Amino acid sequence: MIWKRKNLLGLEELDPEEINFILDAAGSFKEISTRPIKKVPTLRGKTVANLFFEPSTRTRMSFELAAKRLSADLINLSPSSSSLVKGETLLDTVRNIEAFKVDMMVIRHSSSGFPYSLSNLTDVSIINAGDGAHEHPTQALLDLYTIREKKRKIAGLKVAIIGDILHSRVARSNIWGLTKLGAEVILCAPPTLLPREVEKLPVKISYDFEKVIKEADILYFLRIQKEREKRSLFPSIREYVRLFGLNRFRLELLKKDCLIMHPGPVNRGIELDAEVADGPWSVILEQVTNGLAIRMAILYILSGVRTNLKKVR
Amino acid sequence: MIWKRKNLLGLEELDPEEINFILDAAGSFKEISTRPIKKVPTLRGKTVANLFFEPSTRTRMSFELAAKRLSADLINLSPSSSSLVKGETLLDTVRNIEAFKVDMMVIRHSSSGFPYSLSNLTDVSIINAGDGAHEHPTQALLDLYTIREKKRKIAGLKVAIIGDILHSRVARSNIWGLTKLGAEVILCAPPTLLPREVEKLPVKISYDFEKVIKEADILYFLRIQKEREKRSLFPSIREYVRLFGLNRFRLELLKKDCLIMHPGPVNRGIELDAEVADGPWSVILEQVTNGLAIRMAILYILSGVRTNLKKVR
Amino acid sequence: MIWKRKNLLGLEELDPEEINFILDAAGSFKEISTRPIKKVPTLRGKTVANLFFEPSTRTRMSFELAAKRLSADLINLSPSSSSLVKGETLLDTVRNIEAFKVDMMVIRHSSSGFPYSLSNLTDVSIINAGDGAHEHPTQALLDLYTIREKKRKIAGLKVAIIGDILHSRVARSNIWGLTKLGAEVILCAPPTLLPREVEKLPVKISYDFEKVIKEADILYFLRIQKEREKRSLFPSIREYVRLFGLNRFRLELLKKDCLIMHPGPVNRGIELDAEVADGPWSVILEQVTNGLAIRMAILYILSGVRTNLKKVR
Repeated sequence: MIWKRKNLLGLEELDPEEINFILDAAGSFKEISTRPIKKVPTLRGKTVANLFFEPSTRTRMSFELAAKRLSADLINLSPSSSSLVKGETLLDTVRNIEAFKVDMMVIRHSSSGFPYSLSNLTDVSIINAGDGAHEHPTQALLDLYTIREKKRKIAGLKVAIIGDILHSRVARSNIWGLTKLGAEVILCAPPTLLPREVEKLPVKISYDFEKVIKEADILYFLRIQKEREKRSLFPSIREYVRLFGLNRFRLELLKKDCLIMHPGPVNRGIELDAEVADGPWSVILEQVTNGLAIRMAILYILSGVRTNLKKVR
Repeated sequence: MIWKRKNLLGLEELDPEEINFILDAAGSFKEISTRPIKKVPTLRGKTVANLFFEPSTRTRMSFELAAKRLSADLINLSPSSSSLVKGETLLDTVRNIEAFKVDMMVIRHSSSGFPYSLSNLTDVSIINAGDGAHEHPTQALLDLYTIREKKRKIAGLKVAIIGDILHSRVARSNIWGLTKLGAEVILCAPPTLLPREVEKLPVKISYDFEKVIKEADILYFLRIQKEREKRSLFPSIREYVRLFGLNRFRLELLKKDCLIMHPGPVNRGIELDAEVADGPWSVILEQVTNGLAIRMAILYILSGVRTNLKKVR
Repeated sequence: MIWKRKNLLGLEELDPEEINFILDAAGSFKEISTRPIKKVPTLRGKTVANLFFEPSTRTRMSFELAAKRLSADLINLSPSSSSLVKGETLLDTVRNIEAFKVDMMVIRHSSSGFPYSLSNLTDVSIINAGDGAHEHPTQALLDLYTIREKKRKIAGLKVAIIGDILHSRVARSNIWGLTKLGAEVILCAPPTLLPREVEKLPVKISYDFEKVIKEADILYFLRIQKEREKRSLFPSIREYVRLFGLNRFRLELLKKDCLIMHPGPVNRGIELDAEVADGPWSVILEQVTNGLAIRMAILYILSGVRTNLKKVR
């Protein structure tokens, strides 16, 4: 396969072959971070700009390390210290970054669709690191990578996504990725935490948590935002935990080789009890490690496209 | 020519030969950012400290990229997180940076003359990235570079600088640079936005915007700070735009090969209409690209001086 | 000697041989920062994370430069922009950093013992850059290095530590380091600024400043926090300066080859008059330069341990 996209915006638009292409590439990059010298010269002389409009350690750091381990130059633009303070339009900011001959921009923003609009305005490759409640493609890719590595397949698996699906870009990207690769997705949440037009998504829905955890090959828990309680999206945290939390008593219901996943950070005692989050079923930290490999792969793949495009012109 | 200055503080003190020396050097550095591998090992093992006391994306990022593309090590000191919080004097901060064997410091500060005072206290090369309403030499150098590249000369050109000249360090540095290289400078602004002793500057003054834009080879627009309106420095933004704004109706008055320049960020709809800022006369984004080349040249030139000074000692 | 510790947490736990091992290593690293090309490839492909929960220029910058001059990759995690905002536990943050295959974490935190607790939770090497009023080992190591370099020995020297010992992690680390290497330590402060169980420390105490400065080989001044005045830990700043401040009139009491040291930043006019801080007795800026060498040595030594540990496993 030859990769042709300038950007990585979301999984909804990718076809299965493209997704597998990224997962395969990540395999070779994962090994680099296990070496004593965790660095290759692959992207020397390329420039990556990190532009995070929402706070983030995990994802920002993951991209920063991915860039550094590939020997790319990385610039962190924190919007608070930026010209945006002076009232510059976003278009101008992006045009300026382009004028600096930056190769790739990693963007997180609270508005759904924001990186899509940007990508039409610039030749720079745009990587969506989370846009509102819309998509978070590198998260879903690292989840797919983790599942494939552990289960040796994705097609045919039953994956339950549990929790605040309404507000979750992680859920949305995973739904697209998992179903495109042939997994069956079951959403499990209180009705108030399901998205409005959920019936249009290629998923099943269940409100019976105990039944779901008995049958699933993968249990993917989402973070509960405690603030939602006030907005009455569910009766109370305590009630939520009783109905949808995974504690050690429920562990015995799980399939023997079931995987427990979570995009982090975990609310210990809410979605997962501490002993479950840290227990043998959990692959949460492996997700983090694989995230680095996925982001190295994405930077590598998109940078190749730009080089090729330039040659063609 | 052999460059002998430790610092780049302002264009007022440079002679034409020195200015041309920098512009010539920038020419060879500009090419680096067009390569697939935008990096050279020229300043490997040199250290640059960025010390910005005012918010900045463009200039800070430009210096950061310039340093990285020359393989220098760069440190960002944000004054808020620094010892200045603990009440350390600036002298102590600078002495400490010197003790770390930093080669060059890039400084932006709201007080005019600040980098000049600093430069007398230290062996470190000081680069003025903007001091109050006084000078912003790398901005003027990139403007001169852009003009020279587009017009193949500077001497004899008519350059109009339009807008808030009173508060503009960009205007001041450009006045010195342009006149030293033989251009004629015309300031065009409401009288309240002209500096007090403007008659001592080597410039002409005009209040007739339409006459000015007909005759000029270069129209250099400054950013209007909307806050000035409250301080009654001009009647109203609307009135300002009517008198000194460039819209598409006025475009037909321009000379055919006139260049429109702006240090950014543009207030679209005030100094320039969006279609003017983005139109074929505008070289605003090329200014940004050239800024990177100018800053690479400055870091390179000043770093050579230090090395030579050390050899001599 | 073969270094066996994963972490550098404090000097209390080190034996004299270990301390000298670090000081010896720093000697060879100091030379690097005097070269025209201040960079060696020693730690290429290693990753260092800076995690400062308290503001710092000096120490953070020193570690950052140390990492860069050894060609390590460095990541600055500022807790305000981190997932800690989202309420992630510290354990999770550390586990995540570990999952990114970071080699070393540099931590400053206001709680005594914090880096110690962390170090038990992770395989990553932890370097304590200051924990509450407990220890600041790299500061004491650079102080020891400076004394040894200037005096050609440490054993047998009389070192007076003067000022706010109660709140000083610098004092505590120096007390351990100095006494382990055979120096005699005299604490000199108002009784309210001495730690509660001072009699358990291997030090002498004196309230007679003028007697102390006559006899000492080293005068180590600590920073007075002006805020303490309000909490009535001493009568007034003016009174403190009269009793424990070093001005030029008192300079003549000093031994001829006495060294004046201070961890910085100096309150000029309080602990030390400006002319004393900048005078020939002062080695304050050499302390800063040596700090860089010490931190390079620490990163080098601990990184070697990790590599060896991995080989063993």
